[in-house]
Formats: sequence, C-alpha cells, structure tokens
Amino acid sequence: MPAAEIGVIGLGVMGANLALNISDHGYEVAVYNRTVAKTRAFMAEAGALSEKIIACDTLEALVDAIRPPRPIILMIKAGDPVDQQIAALQPLLDRDDLLIDAGNANFRDTIRRFKALEDSGPTFLGMGVSGGEEGARHGPSIMVGGKRDSWQRIEDVLTAISAKYEGEPCAAWVGEDGAGHFVKTIHNGIEYADMQMIAEIYGIMRDGMQMEPAAMAGVFAAWNDGPLDSYLIEITADILQTQDDESGKPMVDMIVDAAGQKGTGRWSAIESLRIAAPAPAIEAAVGARSLSAMIDLRTKAEAVLGVPGQGEFDLGATTLDLLEKALLAGKVAAYAQGFSVMAAASKEYGWHLPLPVIARIWRAGCIIRSRFLDDIASAFTATPDVDNLLLTPEFAQIVTDTDRALRAVLAEAIRKGQPVPALASAVAYFDQLRRSRGTANLIQAQRDYFGAHGFVRTDAEGEAHGPWHSEE
Amino acid sequence: MPAAEIGVIGLGVMGANLALNISDHGYEVAVYNRTVAKTRAFMAEAGALSEKIIACDTLEALVDAIRPPRPIILMIKAGDPVDQQIAALQPLLDRDDLLIDAGNANFRDTIRRFKALEDSGPTFLGMGVSGGEEGARHGPSIMVGGKRDSWQRIEDVLTAISAKYEGEPCAAWVGEDGAGHFVKTIHNGIEYADMQMIAEIYGIMRDGMQMEPAAMAGVFAAWNDGPLDSYLIEITADILQTQDDESGKPMVDMIVDAAGQKGTGRWSAIESLRIAAPAPAIEAAVGARSLSAMIDLRTKAEAVLGVPGQGEFDLGATTLDLLEKALLAGKVAAYAQGFSVMAAASKEYGWHLPLPVIARIWRAGCIIRSRFLDDIASAFTATPDVDNLLLTPEFAQIVTDTDRALRAVLAEAIRKGQPVPALASAVAYFDQLRRSRGTANLIQAQRDYFGAHGFVRTDAEGEAHGPWHSEE
Repeated sequence: MPAAEIGVIGLGVMGANLALNISDHGYEVAVYNRTVAKTRAFMAEAGALSEKIIACDTLEALVDAIRPPRPIILMIKAGDPVDQQIAALQPLLDRDDLLIDAGNANFRDTIRRFKALEDSGPTFLGMGVSGGEEGARHGPSIMVGGKRDSWQRIEDVLTAISAKYEGEPCAAWVGEDGAGHFVKTIHNGIEYADMQMIAEIYGIMRDGMQMEPAAMAGVFAAWNDGPLDSYLIEITADILQTQDDESGKPMVDMIVDAAGQKGTGRWSAIESLRIAAPAPAIEAAVGARSLSAMIDLRTKAEAVLGVPGQGEFDLGATTLDLLEKALLAGKVAAYAQGFSVMAAASKEYGWHLPLPVIARIWRAGCIIRSRFLDDIASAFTATPDVDNLLLTPEFAQIVTDTDRALRAVLAEAIRKGQPVPALASAVAYFDQLRRSRGTANLIQAQRDYFGAHGFVRTDAEGEAHGPWHSEE
Repeated sequence: MPAAEIGVIGLGVMGANLALNISDHGYEVAVYNRTVAKTRAFMAEAGALSEKIIACDTLEALVDAIRPPRPIILMIKAGDPVDQQIAALQPLLDRDDLLIDAGNANFRDTIRRFKALEDSGPTFLGMGVSGGEEGARHGPSIMVGGKRDSWQRIEDVLTAISAKYEGEPCAAWVGEDGAGHFVKTIHNGIEYADMQMIAEIYGIMRDGMQMEPAAMAGVFAAWNDGPLDSYLIEITADILQTQDDESGKPMVDMIVDAAGQKGTGRWSAIESLRIAAPAPAIEAAVGARSLSAMIDLRTKAEAVLGVPGQGEFDLGATTLDLLEKALLAGKVAAYAQGFSVMAAASKEYGWHLPLPVIARIWRAGCIIRSRFLDDIASAFTATPDVDNLLLTPEFAQIVTDTDRALRAVLAEAIRKGQPVPALASAVAYFDQLRRSRGTANLIQAQRDYFGAHGFVRTDAEGEAHGPWHSEE
C-alpha cells in the first residue's frame, strides 16, 4: 500500500518548506525534484522529519508512493515549466488524481489548464499560497480553486498545515478553476497598496518631518497596538530599527529606492480595468513601483523641476495621530477596492467567491494578515450581500472617524510636495462613491457633441441626443 | 484603365463621410457596402460629389474600379468583421494592393493581421482616424501604421483629406504594423484624461461654488482664449450654454451622470501597466467612468456616508484663475504621461514612434486638438531625445508657473469633499518624478524581510539582503 498522503514536486525554498510543514503535522509526504542532488540535500537537512518523507528519484516512484486518488502539489516556476510538468505527469496519473499548482500562476493560465484536463484528467487545481518562506514552513494562508469535491480529498492536510487565526485554519476552497489563483492575485494587489500607503506615510515622516528611522520605528510599533495592528506595520517597525552592520547606519537608509515587482500587482490592476471595478489604490501602488525604478529620470526631473523643501510638513501637536488615522482610512479604501474587484470577478467568471471566507483565511499566515481582516470578515458575515465594504456599518463608521484626518494629511502633503498617490486615490474613491449625482453628465454631453454617442435623459428612458451644433 | 485612386468599404457615417471628403478633394473614390441599398442612398445624398464616386455592388467591381496597386480603406465594425472582410477580399487582390483598416482596432489585432498577410499580401495597414463624423467629412487627424513604402502610395490622398494646422497636414505614417492604431489608442486615453479633468473642474464650479451652467460657460469660453485653448474647452463652453428645448433647463442638467466607454481608454491604461510606463491620469479617468456607471452603488453610498456640503469651495478672489492654472497643470501631466507611454511602447515594439510628428498631427482634426499640442510639438522638436515632456524647458516652466495653483485647488477640493481623482494624480506624478530619492527603499526592505527578494545597497553593486529576523 502506498503510504504518502500527498506529493510535492519542486524542492526550492517554498516547496521544501511546504513538505517539511506537511511532515511536521504527521502526514507522510512524497517529494521529487528534477535534480536528484537537491532531493538528497533536502533529506539530509530534514533531520527527524525525514522519517515522514519519502524521497523519490523519478516521477514514477513519486506516483507509486502516494495513496490514490493522489494529490500532487507542484511548487515550481510559473509559466511553461508547469505545462511541461503536467505533460510529463499525465501519462502516469489516473483520471481522479489531483494536480495542484501552488505557484504564482496567472489565473487565466489556471483556467486554461483546468479546462484542458477537465475531460481526460487528472483533475487540476490552482492553489494560492501566501506567507513567504516562513509561512510555507510554519503555516501559510491557502486559497484553493478547482472542483469542490477535489477539495475534500486534500482538506485535512491543507487545513492542518495552514496558519490558524484563534484556532481557525486559514485554508479554504474559494471557487472553480482559476478562483484560487485569482484570489491570491488580488491578495497581492492589496498588499501592494498597503505597502505603498505605509511608504507614503514613511516619506512624510522622513522628508516632511525629518524624523530619524529609530523614531519612526517607535511610532509604527505603537500603531501596531491599535487599529493598524498587522504584520506589515510590525515588520515596518522592525525594519526601521534595524542597523546595517557594515555602515553602522540605519539599514533602510542603505537601500536603493527602486522597487521590484513580479507581476501580481500589475495583474490585479489590469483585471480591475478589464472588469470595470476600479482599484485606484492598487494602480497607484503599481505606478509608484514603476516610477521608483526610473532613478535616472527622477534624478533629471529633480534637477529641472526642483524638489520641495524638507521638514515643512506640520499639522501641529496631533500630526502623528492624524497620520495614523489617514493610514487607516487609506487602508479601508484599498481593501474595499480589492474586495469589490473580487465581487465583480466572481460574477464575471461565475465563481461565487465567498468574501467572508476569504477575509477569514487572510487573517493569519499571509503578508496582509491583521486584526483588520478579522473586522472585514465580521462585516461581510453580518452583511453578506453588501455591494461594497464601505457600506457596512462597521466600515462606514471607520470612514466617518478618519475622514477629516485623511483630508488634513492629504491637503498638507500636497501643499508641501510630499508624494501621496495611493492615499490621495483613497479620498478620491470615497468622494466619487458618495455622490449620487456625479459629473459624468458633462462627459456624456461631450461624447454626444463630438461623436454622437448619445446619452440618457434624467426624465426619460432610452437614448437621446443634444441640440448641439445649432449654428451649423 | 481603372479610374479610382482609392476604395472605401463600409458606408456608415464615418465611411460615407471619408468617401465624400476624398471626392471633395478631387480624387475619384470607389465605394462598396454589404447592403447595396445603403450604397444607393449614399449616392443619392452625395449630390454633385457623386460624379467623383464609383458605386460598386460587388467586391469584384470595387477591385476592378481602383488603379493598382489598389488602396482600400475598411471602415467597418472592429473585431471579427474585419477578419471576415479580409478573407473575402484576399482572393481578389494582388500582393502589392493595400488593405487599410481605419476602424478602432486594438493594435494587437492589427499586429496579428499585419503579420498574417506579410508573406501572401495584400499589404495590411492600420490607420487611426480621429475627429468624429465632422472630422471624417472635413478633415480628420490620420495616424498610419504599416510598411513605410505603402504610405507613399496613399500619402497624397490622405494628406489632402486630413485636417490642416496652419497649412500643415495632420496625417502621417508613424511606424510599422500596429503603430497607427496604438497611437490612436493613446490619443483616446489622453482624451479621457483631458475630459475627466474638465469634469472635475466643472464639479468644483457646480457643487463647490454653486455656479450656474451659463456662468460656467462664460468661464470656459474665456479660458479658450488662453493657454487652455482647445476643442474640448470650446465645446464645454458651448455645451454649458445650451438649453434643453423640452424642459427649458440647461441641457447638461438633464443628462444622466453615467459615462459610456468603448475600450480605447481602458486599452491605454492596460498597456501603460503592461509596459510599466505609468499613466495615472488615464487610469483615474477610466476609473471615474466606471464609478459613474454605478449609480445604484453611489446612491447607497451617499445615504450611508453622506455627501459633503455644497458651496464650500473658496480660494478667495482668484479662485477661477487658480482653477484655470490647475487644469493646465493637470493637462501637462496627462499629456506627459500619454507621450511617455508612447515612448516606452516604441521601444517595446520597435516602432521608433516620432513624438514630434504625432504632436503635430494632433494639432487639428482630432478631439484633443489644441494650441497646447503645437507647444508639445515645438518642445519635442527642440529637445528630441528628452525622456519626458516635463523635462523640456517649456513644460518645466509651465509646471513651475502652475504648481502652486494646482496644490491650492487640490488641498481645498480634498478638504471640501470635491472628487478630483485625475487632478490629484497629476500632482502625485510630479511629486514622485521630481524626487531622486523616493521611498521604495522601505518597500524593498519589506519585500526582502518577508520574501527574501533582495535589494541593491546604495554603496555596492549586486543583490544584498538585510539582517532581519535576528532573533530567530
């Protein structure tokens, strides 16, 4: 009888840590890596856990080692390697075996693979895993997409290895085909926005208030005991108090200000555009990373346009409290946008994404884990059919409580030349959303004027045109 | 001998007007429409111009009527109909005949069609045409993409029918394969941003200052004599002074505030994300149109969150001057972004897009035509290798002159709850661009902290990591 509960292909850091996590929870796991030496090294480092790990040198051996129907996790480079691995495995697997792509796939690829294997098998699943290396080893957040009955085969092991929030596992099935990878993508999009807003507040403190990193660390640490309590705020405090051993200076000051991006933030923004569910905070964060990479251009622009004066940001004695509230307000907008993109995509792709469940499995394990997500889970659970997070009583109250602070911070930042793209997008989002009568009537008039596109009258149904060009 | 200089397929308003324009300039044009009755009706309405028009009931007759190598303009619905029309024409055409798609194609489709026909012929061109119905009839702006030598066959007729700016034709070849349709797409993206910024200023006047449409019309008309002089400002003034005959009220007040969009704005934003050339003003405009369409949600949000007070926007006696300058500043950002997207795409797709030429052919005929584009053309001609419009002396000066006004308007709008998504994105763009030292160093620290993504040190080459997790 094959002994392994599950298989893992790919023993890079993420795959290796997932395998260790699985064995650590008492499940036998079969592992395979294309380079056998890597498998050997992994087993040597696994220590006592290696007793629960079956090292396989061939795909055939891996398949033979797993109890049918066989769940096999692929933790390999996203893209073509996944298609190649599927092609290599398909002849060895039964129709009801489960291939689980745990890499950072684009959800459109996952939909394609799901459909391609739907008739022939094995059953394909796309699984988003968040939490980085540490999460993979000690408890990630796990978002599974695919056939619901496939989930039942792997539910035990995945909930066991997942992060726990007050005892509740942070792993769930979220919908068919690409739903898991889509939810992971939006998680990352929100993460981009959250990080960008923290960076904007950091910029105000550093350049606008001329605070030292150690002083900022203290502020972020204090905020971590309040409503901003989250992993990202916690590590920001930790980063800001970290010294660079080589230079003896604060580590953060020794890092080049050009941010990398691997695509998930961009995919989130593109998808939000495609389905017309605006996520301006995510767009601002992606744009900020792209501009950050253009150091030459920025250096030239500073020389031509000049940089605003340092240390001029001042809102009086409560400045830091206002910054805390502004960041909270911005965060509300970013998360409301992310969840609204998921709601729209859910309709577009027929997923029925369970928003309260998604908020729950993001409370621990993943990069955006926070108390705040527990509040979101509660709000969506209490008001399941709400159109937007901002309409729940809990979050409407936060907006009301933080609104003036956000506006005060933005007005001062803009006057003093502090870049606040994501925070400014938050207030623009609020202000567009809270107006039943906007200004697109003028845009419709213009479109009809130059292109005869038509408009709807406020007092009638159907398409109408204006009496323009009367002189012609 | 066939007599026609060129053919036109598709006699909808745009195709009919193009054909009339061509014949009006003394060129013989052969026309064809799938429904023959439409061709008859067109000829009946063409009056004296019909002498220069050869009505064809079949594609064969159309082809026989045109002087080889035959240029044939397709002005039909974008998408599948274009592919079907190509398939129907291909057997009738010679290798060096020219098929010119003048519809609103996605440039990726144009690249695909160009490549598919590259070996077999006919030669495929993608042609962006801007200016709406009026432009098509009396002089559009024309952006041609395809093989350069194909342009020589059609240059005479296209420059003849194009708009003229101080005698210079607004028609040009801009690059290979999809370049023409790409440039048209970005034209429309800029148009979205320009219209959105005008709508934001209109919103401030209407809700923040409680001005009546007729009073606003006077302001926009006056602005049209200054640096904002442009078709969009001109028609805004005209729209605001137009009465609705039915209700006797200002027309603009009788139009539902839900804006339509046909895709080119969204394509611009998506493409800017793909190639990492931020265009936040275009993103904000697309987002604003999407939010405008969510009237139910906005009505609910107003009930829950409340709408800010009316008539509270006040910057003293110079308020209107400040609004004018703010709009000019916003416009500079939007156009700088649009041109930077073209510069980046030019590298990505190997087009060598001639930015001064593009600015020149947008000075007349198209929707964003303006004196401002003449200034852009001059700036790019004087500084051809500049990385961004903002770095040219002329536009750096405009930024300097309008910067304080933009900041004052934004600060007041944000404090008083006036939505300014696109204008706020402009100042964020300036403030990110003019800082040689941004805040992405913190983002890189966070990414390294949770994902071991690495960063570059300010004092060394290559990838480095921080001393995080020291306690673990």
